[in-house]
Amino acid sequence: MFTTSLGEDGAELRPLEPWRAEEFLAHMERGREFIGRHITLADRVTDLASSRAYLQSYADKAASDTGRMYGIWLDGGLVGGVLIRTMDVVLGNAEVGCWLEPRAAGRGLVTRAIRLLVDWLFEERGVHRVEWQAVSANTASLAVAKRLGMTKEGVLRESYPYRGERHDVEIWSVLAPEWRA
Amino acid sequence: MFTTSLGEDGAELRPLEPWRAEEFLAHMERGREFIGRHITLADRVTDLASSRAYLQSYADKAASDTGRMYGIWLDGGLVGGVLIRTMDVVLGNAEVGCWLEPRAAGRGLVTRAIRLLVDWLFEERGVHRVEWQAVSANTASLAVAKRLGMTKEGVLRESYPYRGERHDVEIWSVLAPEWRA
Amino acid sequence: MFTTSLGEDGAELRPLEPWRAEEFLAHMERGREFIGRHITLADRVTDLASSRAYLQSYADKAASDTGRMYGIWLDGGLVGGVLIRTMDVVLGNAEVGCWLEPRAAGRGLVTRAIRLLVDWLFEERGVHRVEWQAVSANTASLAVAKRLGMTKEGVLRESYPYRGERHDVEIWSVLAPEWRA
Amino acid sequence: MFTTSLGEDGAELRPLEPWRAEEFLAHMERGREFIGRHITLADRVTDLASSRAYLQSYADKAASDTGRMYGIWLDGGLVGGVLIRTMDVVLGNAEVGCWLEPRAAGRGLVTRAIRLLVDWLFEERGVHRVEWQAVSANTASLAVAKRLGMTKEGVLRESYPYRGERHDVEIWSVLAPEWRA
Amino acid sequence: MFTTSLGEDGAELRPLEPWRAEEFLAHMERGREFIGRHITLADRVTDLASSRAYLQSYADKAASDTGRMYGIWLDGGLVGGVLIRTMDVVLGNAEVGCWLEPRAAGRGLVTRAIRLLVDWLFEERGVHRVEWQAVSANTASLAVAKRLGMTKEGVLRESYPYRGERHDVEIWSVLAPEWRA
Amino acid sequence: MFTTSLGEDGAELRPLEPWRAEEFLAHMERGREFIGRHITLADRVTDLASSRAYLQSYADKAASDTGRMYGIWLDGGLVGGVLIRTMDVVLGNAEVGCWLEPRAAGRGLVTRAIRLLVDWLFEERGVHRVEWQAVSANTASLAVAKRLGMTKEGVLRESYPYRGERHDVEIWSVLAPEWRA
Repeated sequence: MFTTSLGEDGAELRPLEPWRAEEFLAHMERGREFIGRHITLADRVTDLASSRAYLQSYADKAASDTGRMYGIWLDGGLVGGVLIRTMDVVLGNAEVGCWLEPRAAGRGLVTRAIRLLVDWLFEERGVHRVEWQAVSANTASLAVAKRLGMTKEGVLRESYPYRGERHDVEIWSVLAPEWRA
Repeated sequence: MFTTSLGEDGAELRPLEPWRAEEFLAHMERGREFIGRHITLADRVTDLASSRAYLQSYADKAASDTGRMYGIWLDGGLVGGVLIRTMDVVLGNAEVGCWLEPRAAGRGLVTRAIRLLVDWLFEERGVHRVEWQAVSANTASLAVAKRLGMTKEGVLRESYPYRGERHDVEIWSVLAPEWRA
Repeated sequence: MFTTSLGEDGAELRPLEPWRAEEFLAHMERGREFIGRHITLADRVTDLASSRAYLQSYADKAASDTGRMYGIWLDGGLVGGVLIRTMDVVLGNAEVGCWLEPRAAGRGLVTRAIRLLVDWLFEERGVHRVEWQAVSANTASLAVAKRLGMTKEGVLRESYPYRGERHDVEIWSVLAPEWRA
Repeated sequence: MFTTSLGEDGAELRPLEPWRAEEFLAHMERGREFIGRHITLADRVTDLASSRAYLQSYADKAASDTGRMYGIWLDGGLVGGVLIRTMDVVLGNAEVGCWLEPRAAGRGLVTRAIRLLVDWLFEERGVHRVEWQAVSANTASLAVAKRLGMTKEGVLRESYPYRGERHDVEIWSVLAPEWRA
Repeated sequence: MFTTSLGEDGAELRPLEPWRAEEFLAHMERGREFIGRHITLADRVTDLASSRAYLQSYADKAASDTGRMYGIWLDGGLVGGVLIRTMDVVLGNAEVGCWLEPRAAGRGLVTRAIRLLVDWLFEERGVHRVEWQAVSANTASLAVAKRLGMTKEGVLRESYPYRGERHDVEIWSVLAPEWRA
Repeated sequence: MFTTSLGEDGAELRPLEPWRAEEFLAHMERGREFIGRHITLADRVTDLASSRAYLQSYADKAASDTGRMYGIWLDGGLVGGVLIRTMDVVLGNAEVGCWLEPRAAGRGLVTRAIRLLVDWLFEERGVHRVEWQAVSANTASLAVAKRLGMTKEGVLRESYPYRGERHDVEIWSVLAPEWRA
């Protein structure tokens, strides 16, 4: 129920809810090194309690309509996900993001999944602007922004402390009229 | 995204969230008299604020994993819904229910939608027992319980005050092994 | 202050509040095996913190007018209790229950105490229906329902998981007009 | 249930809970002018909502074990009450107070009721010191403190603004050893 | 007490707390048209309740160490203010902002006040990066960023809906080592 | 920023906020024995978590406008503080207090700092009455009350349990007209 197909390879998108904390943790164990190169997610999900807490934070965002989190399943296993990190339908702005296990990289899964999110934000929720943020070194993430047709708007210098260093963060975005064009 | 087909007639099931409060209210306006014959829902959703509040109560249940609400769309319009009124995955019990606009009655929409909910409760969530409650006069609702293969377990006498009178409530249920049989 | 006599044998009913957590725990230690045969209470009160938490949950119900808990004292010692597990004065429904140490069984203490609760619910609070629930194997508890003149309304099959098995739960009730008759 | 006799004239003490808001309001209407000469209670209970809110504030104190409120019934009607305005069993301190309709004055009802409260505080709850506060002009209230054997400890100058003027407040107290003597 | 001089013209900086709601509202009445050209503040503070609520939101940020708000007084009157709109000392990031009545413009008051905030953030609180955001048309605000030696990092396109149109927002920042240089 | 000079010896008063928890704890370590002779503060701040919690309790009071806490710095080190333990601007009452490391005693620091607090309470906040409480044996504290021109109003007998004994507490106060005289 409520599984959305991501294409002919059988990949699927599903709400990623707190009751999947064990599955989410196992997935994070498999992808920890790869996922943790650029984002804090890997460091924040380290046991069942933190896994549940992380998913609960998005369950709470869903209830307050300020965010959403979805997992990507491939061949029956959770291999990554996409999320609406923030959304404000009154202001018409949202920020989306993603993560993947290495075995699922290179297939366009995230791009497909993000397209669904952006469609939903623009067409069903009336959002005007969708933002993408990634550290400058995260070339895989920035490549998604480019593939989605986003525009680079700037660089927040040394705004992201991670593993002992401060990193620049790029901001990209796409506006509703651009998306529809 | 996250639309589940209910069959070849194009009926669909979707999460019914607070941002759909206007659509939910309009639906309730259309079905108020019919829906209100046996359940309080019609009396509780009377304007945009109460519509939003009602949907929010289920958004909160979703966040705390104690309930869910889904709408049924037919020919592009919201015509009814099904819900998990209560669920306790630790105890393994849940109660499900439904409502419909008259124009959508007689097509088995609720039965199809409830089957999805019960499948999810038994197969994905590990629930053991799913309950159905309806006042004795609500024959349409009780017919759904029968069609689902539920067993009548008892009658809570005069337990449901509605529109000036106290009504008997029937309890039906199906257990996981029965469902799978 | 606020002790209610239960009869000529000196038994008394008093509010059972969080500040009695030590006394409640000692009582539970004495009756744990007997009390724990059919209900979870014994498993939930195992040290001072859980004793206090359990009593606090009923202090909170009292404050929100959704439940009450009273202890039964005999010969100066706490030997059991009765409670209004749920009450909804708007709907006019309540559920009552009880527990006892073995040394206090067979004296009709619970029946006397429950009569006071039911009188209060019907006559002072305007409740219409009082329910009693017990697993089918708990013959002592079901005997109380019978002695109170309650009617058996049904059996919730396998609704109560306890100590590794799922148990059937009987529902009995008495209505205000029946009580007064 | 849980009515405590105050003596041979049939006066009784009972918990004064939010569900008695209508009765409490009617009582306040009868006694408003008299009760309002020295204390704010009369000004704070002016309709059903404020009556319920006031009683709820004490229901919440009961749940957190920081206060209690009891009504005095005479000839079947609510005529006044006593309260534990604050209590801190860790520090061993409490403050008690009272109010009365004029028709119930002059019978020693408050003195009798306060004795029960003080007994409970000292003997059951282990409090060491019970305080009484009243504005200097409230001779009836101060007379109760004297009758209870309390000692005047000081005067908080101009500490109590009421109806446009600031009033001195006297503090009296009795200690557990004094009470028992 | 806790007034900080802003220079020889007698201008002063003080915490702007909820108890100053009347003064804040009067100030906003005087500056509403001017202040409201580019920022929502003017539209959000329209009566005593909204004035108090706005100031309370910053009192709450102060208590949770996530923001601060200070007023600028000139010749005894409140003429503007500066604020730390967001701060996260764990991440080392903060965003600051300002507003002014027209009569106080052109004196460098905001620049002086912001210097104090940035000093405090960098030197006392260990923040690494301070951000400034303003719509592209708000040249006065952007001039402050320049005067403070900030660097323009990008433009968030159409991210700010205000009075019926969506506006571009510029992001500027200064890093601790730059500030100290 | 927001440092207030206490005089020519360089002593300064600053808000004492949760982010100073380490500094506050170190100060308490130095003064623990001396400070702990008469007040519980020393026993309540024993590690970083309790230090932060104590300061947070006053940050919360500041946000709700019911108290304030300020530290006294001398020669660059935190040596003591003053606080508004309670304040109710609607009733016009407040209670102030203080503590000091021994090395800072005998310089009138507290008297100077309290004068600032009392001025603020009377002149800026419209408070009518400021109270001072200290156990009878705390002669240094009572000497401050005298120096401030306060009047002794009474003694709360055995109201303060501390380190195994109950102590008398003196109440002193000054009223706004007296302060201005």
